[in-house]
Amino acid sequence: MKENFKKYLVEFIGTFFLVFTVVSAVLFGSEAGVIAPLSIGFALMIMVYAGGHISGGHYNPAVSLAAAIRGALEWKQLVPYWISQFLGATCAALLLAKDALLPAFAGCPFDWLQVVIGEFLFTFALCYVVLQVATSKKTEGNSYYGLAIGSTVLVGAFAVGGILCFGAFNPAVALGLGLIRIACWTSVVLITVTNLVAALAAALVFKFVDSEE
Amino acid sequence: MKENFKKYLVEFIGTFFLVFTVVSAVLFGSEAGVIAPLSIGFALMIMVYAGGHISGGHYNPAVSLAAAIRGALEWKQLVPYWISQFLGATCAALLLAKDALLPAFAGCPFDWLQVVIGEFLFTFALCYVVLQVATSKKTEGNSYYGLAIGSTVLVGAFAVGGILCFGAFNPAVALGLGLIRIACWTSVVLITVTNLVAALAAALVFKFVDSEE
Amino acid sequence: MKENFKKYLVEFIGTFFLVFTVVSAVLFGSEAGVIAPLSIGFALMIMVYAGGHISGGHYNPAVSLAAAIRGALEWKQLVPYWISQFLGATCAALLLAKDALLPAFAGCPFDWLQVVIGEFLFTFALCYVVLQVATSKKTEGNSYYGLAIGSTVLVGAFAVGGILCFGAFNPAVALGLGLIRIACWTSVVLITVTNLVAALAAALVFKFVDSEE
Amino acid sequence: MKENFKKYLVEFIGTFFLVFTVVSAVLFGSEAGVIAPLSIGFALMIMVYAGGHISGGHYNPAVSLAAAIRGALEWKQLVPYWISQFLGATCAALLLAKDALLPAFAGCPFDWLQVVIGEFLFTFALCYVVLQVATSKKTEGNSYYGLAIGSTVLVGAFAVGGILCFGAFNPAVALGLGLIRIACWTSVVLITVTNLVAALAAALVFKFVDSEE
Repeated sequence: MKENFKKYLVEFIGTFFLVFTVVSAVLFGSEAGVIAPLSIGFALMIMVYAGGHISGGHYNPAVSLAAAIRGALEWKQLVPYWISQFLGATCAALLLAKDALLPAFAGCPFDWLQVVIGEFLFTFALCYVVLQVATSKKTEGNSYYGLAIGSTVLVGAFAVGGILCFGAFNPAVALGLGLIRIACWTSVVLITVTNLVAALAAALVFKFVDSEE
Repeated sequence: MKENFKKYLVEFIGTFFLVFTVVSAVLFGSEAGVIAPLSIGFALMIMVYAGGHISGGHYNPAVSLAAAIRGALEWKQLVPYWISQFLGATCAALLLAKDALLPAFAGCPFDWLQVVIGEFLFTFALCYVVLQVATSKKTEGNSYYGLAIGSTVLVGAFAVGGILCFGAFNPAVALGLGLIRIACWTSVVLITVTNLVAALAAALVFKFVDSEE
Repeated sequence: MKENFKKYLVEFIGTFFLVFTVVSAVLFGSEAGVIAPLSIGFALMIMVYAGGHISGGHYNPAVSLAAAIRGALEWKQLVPYWISQFLGATCAALLLAKDALLPAFAGCPFDWLQVVIGEFLFTFALCYVVLQVATSKKTEGNSYYGLAIGSTVLVGAFAVGGILCFGAFNPAVALGLGLIRIACWTSVVLITVTNLVAALAAALVFKFVDSEE
Repeated sequence: MKENFKKYLVEFIGTFFLVFTVVSAVLFGSEAGVIAPLSIGFALMIMVYAGGHISGGHYNPAVSLAAAIRGALEWKQLVPYWISQFLGATCAALLLAKDALLPAFAGCPFDWLQVVIGEFLFTFALCYVVLQVATSKKTEGNSYYGLAIGSTVLVGAFAVGGILCFGAFNPAVALGLGLIRIACWTSVVLITVTNLVAALAAALVFKFVDSEE
């Protein structure tokens, strides 16, 4: 019980800082095109390195789902992990909300199909990278897992940031963007569903390409 | 057979995300001078870390050629690797093509000699770095190979990006740029030939400087 | 005695370069929004890698406090470490002062509550990351500790740099900013106290989540 | 003999790419304030990772001097290393010279004292970091040496790039800047002497703080 609570606390802390950094960089960054992707990538990296050895360092409900399918997280831990992650995102968003309450949906208009494609592709990439570098026996003991995982989000933000008005690749980040009214609730739900489908796809591809284990 | 197919799938996935990121950053990046090089470098890095232990993580026909000359890839695997890589590049380009069809050759004018020199130098550097950090016995078990390989492309994009209007250092990327009509087909062929010659040169230099093995 | 002096010298050198880089980037950087965070993050990283095996590579009185609470630094070393760090910061600031003496408090106006929240959060994150990656038995022998620690400051500078007019996360940096008259002395004191409280909080959280050891 | 020639070739290749990247980024970079420091830092990093296990990966006469004083390079190798490095720099500069011949000393005016201080500080930092991360027994087998070494130059370029009109921290880079007429020959000589003095200082400090070995 106490051991489990440590994991939830680590997931809470990591998701809090990830969402705080994302929302803050999006809202206040003067050169957001460069800074927001760098911020989100490095924020994820530092929290993966800080907490990976305790909770696995997911900070993302889609990654936790992929980890459960792959057998790297007990299924009964999935819901508590999700709660910890959404709680961290909520606290970060509320802390920033005072200054940040925009006049609702001030974000750019967007195309549903593009959101689905962009979110699918890079949540797939994220879960694929996480499973390969952090759960495969062939890469055990490496020192690059945090760099690779954090940089995947960085690349995703660069790659689809010019197409979508934002890229979450993470239902907890989407929740944070919704609470701060950068994303509308329909898109939060759409992103969440797309992220979970992408996690499933990545887990299946991983199970195939690493199937010797 | 199934083991080989896993490798081809990993090469397909990696080249897909590399080319998707390159083309997307070039087309949509608002601060392309900084973002495109960072994107391509980090995209290659994450895919090298994700798939290196399965397929070698080439995602580049020139690198596969260098690996074959060096003895790190069976010669009979060279053509299937090339097919997987070009297929990944094609899928990425087609996915982006709908929004991106430029009025053909909208890129800047360029000088054939500069393209050859720039592509030769940094494809040479890329293959040299790959062979040193990922196939030399003296560097076995290191955690920096993906960082070094991805950063080589980043450096190349910075170094000749101000001279050439683009740097590919990779025939699959050149194909993607051709399909999206950023590069004309003559330059795609020129880049491809130059990249393969550079791969040969790098493999020979590597064999000399690491000849104790 | 001589062994201790080596540690103080390493702390002095590291804090000198950290503060020199921060102050210089803030004063002279033409694109300060990107360059200052990158500079401070990488400067901390290189000095952590250079001196971590000798002194622990703190370069920050708050980190030294967290290390003492966690048992990674002898309590009797805390004050000499602080003196070395403040001395390094003072030398760096004085070296830059000739060209840099601004007409006093030229910085942007700021909100006390935001300074406290921003400094608390990211000094907490910094100490939490340091204790996890550099003092936990579960992460011993890793090669990423400098990258993770340096990047935490980078993320903090990005995340609250748009809210606060500066983020120190380090009483020695705050002293440097005060000596160069970017920060007023009231804010230097406020930052210092907040940083030390955050170090205490991070050490307690670390002791809980890593309590098996 | 042949073994030695391999080392000289590796030093030649690495210095060639370092100087080519520096000069090119300075001449053609549209956002030089960010791109030049990133380019030089990553270029050094990749070449250190590529050739460190063969030649030590110096690519810098000052670093070779520091390595000789520390006992990590035979004294009789110092001059051949210097020749290889200056030759690599010359080839890179000449290759770029056709397009780049500026109307002589087009660089910004500068202050001799600032050049000496800036070059001394960051060449000292570079040699100090190299000796600590690449030659100390306490850090043997790490995967971060290239990242730390390359990033030191990056930090130096950020830190004094706003004060000096350029930072070389490397006599071979200074030679390249002179050949391309960005730096006048008086400053090339001044930088070279300052760099070698800084290398001596760093080697002495290293010998003291790592004296147990």
